[in-house]
Amino acid sequence: MLNFRHEDNTVIAVLQDYITNEVLMVGNMNREALVKTLTTGYVHFWSLSRKKIWLKGETSKNFQIVEEIRIDCDADAILIKVKPLGPTCHTGNRSCFYRSHYDIVNSKS
Amino acid sequence: MLNFRHEDNTVIAVLQDYITNEVLMVGNMNREALVKTLTTGYVHFWSLSRKKIWLKGETSKNFQIVEEIRIDCDADAILIKVKPLGPTCHTGNRSCFYRSHYDIVNSKS
Repeated sequence: MLNFRHEDNTVIAVLQDYITNEVLMVGNMNREALVKTLTTGYVHFWSLSRKKIWLKGETSKNFQIVEEIRIDCDADAILIKVKPLGPTCHTGNRSCFYRSHYDIVNSKS
Repeated sequence: MLNFRHEDNTVIAVLQDYITNEVLMVGNMNREALVKTLTTGYVHFWSLSRKKIWLKGETSKNFQIVEEIRIDCDADAILIKVKPLGPTCHTGNRSCFYRSHYDIVNSKS
């Protein structure tokens, strides 16, 4: 079985576009979020900051449809290949990883 | 700057093959692991279980060479595109995500 050993009894979930293989985002899933994801086919996360389950896309309608799920060797991370129904990032970018690390290194904050 | 908000003051780090785009593994990096990664060009992690820095490949010699680093929108996860010098997973598989979730669902443990 999975090892929900991360914060708030979660696994790390990586979303990857099932066609382009672009990595779209990373989030946490507890057991309930995983069950909702498996039973509905829509990606759900556990929000570490808001302490609640969220259906990814519940506001934007940019739902993430599950195509395939893979498990890592120590069973504390999963890779979900998805069909995104719109930009995955809340900024409107296709992926949350839209910034190069140089953007960070060169920023003043 | 990065938000080291995960366990032991870390960010989540996803490794992706820079040529094939295969997702290879997920780990945690604290500030020291990130600095070592940036300065050496070899991926280092913070081990949550052993509570120490580890150079990925220090035993197997399957080092992961940094090609590109990207940051996510809330700066608590990074995506590292790498050139792997051998199988990334300690099991000898190319990726740690070598199992389908059906393997888990159908297992008895």
